[in-house]
Amino acid sequence: MEGLGLGYLGAGIGAGLAVIGAGLGIGNVAASAAEGVARQPEATADIRTTMIIAAALIEGVALFGEVICVLLALK
Amino acid sequence: MEGLGLGYLGAGIGAGLAVIGAGLGIGNVAASAAEGVARQPEATADIRTTMIIAAALIEGVALFGEVICVLLALK
Amino acid sequence: MEGLGLGYLGAGIGAGLAVIGAGLGIGNVAASAAEGVARQPEATADIRTTMIIAAALIEGVALFGEVICVLLALK
Amino acid sequence: MEGLGLGYLGAGIGAGLAVIGAGLGIGNVAASAAEGVARQPEATADIRTTMIIAAALIEGVALFGEVICVLLALK
Amino acid sequence: MEGLGLGYLGAGIGAGLAVIGAGLGIGNVAASAAEGVARQPEATADIRTTMIIAAALIEGVALFGEVICVLLALK
Repeated sequence: MEGLGLGYLGAGIGAGLAVIGAGLGIGNVAASAAEGVARQPEATADIRTTMIIAAALIEGVALFGEVICVLLALK
Repeated sequence: MEGLGLGYLGAGIGAGLAVIGAGLGIGNVAASAAEGVARQPEATADIRTTMIIAAALIEGVALFGEVICVLLALK
Repeated sequence: MEGLGLGYLGAGIGAGLAVIGAGLGIGNVAASAAEGVARQPEATADIRTTMIIAAALIEGVALFGEVICVLLALK
Repeated sequence: MEGLGLGYLGAGIGAGLAVIGAGLGIGNVAASAAEGVARQPEATADIRTTMIIAAALIEGVALFGEVICVLLALK
Repeated sequence: MEGLGLGYLGAGIGAGLAVIGAGLGIGNVAASAAEGVARQPEATADIRTTMIIAAALIEGVALFGEVICVLLALK
C-alpha cells in the first residue's frame, strides 16, 4: 500500500466500530428478549425466533463490514 | 489510488459507522418487537412482519453504504 | 481526483453517517410501530402504513446521500 | 510495515473499541437475563439459553474484529 | 518499531478503552445480579451462574484485546 498506511488505521478503527454496532444492537434485542421470556415463558419460542431473525440481519451487515476491514488490513 | 490513501481510511471508518447505524436501528426495532411478542403472543405474525419490513429498509441503506466502502477499499 | 484524496475520505465517512441517521430513524419509528401493533393488533394495517410512509421518507434522503457518496467514490 | 505505523495505532484503538461493543452488548443482555431469572426463577433455562445464543453472536463478531487487529499488530 | 511510535499510543488508548468496555459491561451485569439476589434470595445460585457465564464471555474478549495491546507495547 502506498501512502502513509492510512488504510491500516481505517481497518482497525472500522473493525472496532463494527463490533460496537453489532454488540449494542444484538445486546439490545436480546435484553428485551430475555425480559420477554421472563414475563411470558410460554412465548419463548416466538420471542427467540424474532430475536434470531433480527440478530442474523445485524450479524450480516457486521460481518460484511468486518470483511471490508480485512480487505484493508491485508492489502 | 493517488494521494495519501485517505480513501482507505474512509472505507474502514465508513464501514464501521454503517454497522453502528444498522445495528442500533435493527436492534431498537427488534427489542420492541420482542417486548410486543411477550405482551401479545397472538399478534406475533403481525409484529414480526412489521419488524422485517423495517429491518429490510435499514438493511438496504446499510448494504448500499457498505458497497460504497468496498468500492473505496478495492480502488 | 486532484488534491490529497479528501473526497474519498468524505465518501466513506459520509456513507457511514448516512446509515447511522437512517438506521436510528427508521429503527425508532418501527420500534414504536411494533409496540403499537402489540397494544392494538386490530390497527395493524394503519400502523404499518404510517410506518412505511415515514420509513420511505427517511430512506429517500438516505439514498440521496449515499448517491452523493458514490459520486465522490467513483470520481 | 511502511509509513508511520498508523496500523499499530489502528490495532490498539480497534481492539479497545471492539471490547467496548462486546462488553456493553453482552453486559446489557446479561443484566436483563439476571433480572429475568430473579423475576421468574422457573424460566432460568429458557432465559439462559436466549442469553447464550445472543452472547455467542456478539462474541463471534468481536473475536473477528480482534483477529483483524491482531493481523494489523503483527504486520 | 520504525516510525513515530504510534503503536505505543495505540497500545495505551486501546488498553484503556478495553477496560471501559469490560468494566461497564461486567458492572452492568453484576448490578442487576445483585438486585436480583436481593429481590429473590432463593434464586441466588441461578442468578450467580448466569452472571458468571456472561462475565466470562466479556472477560474473554477483553483479555484478547489487552493481549493485542501488550503485543503493541512490547514491539
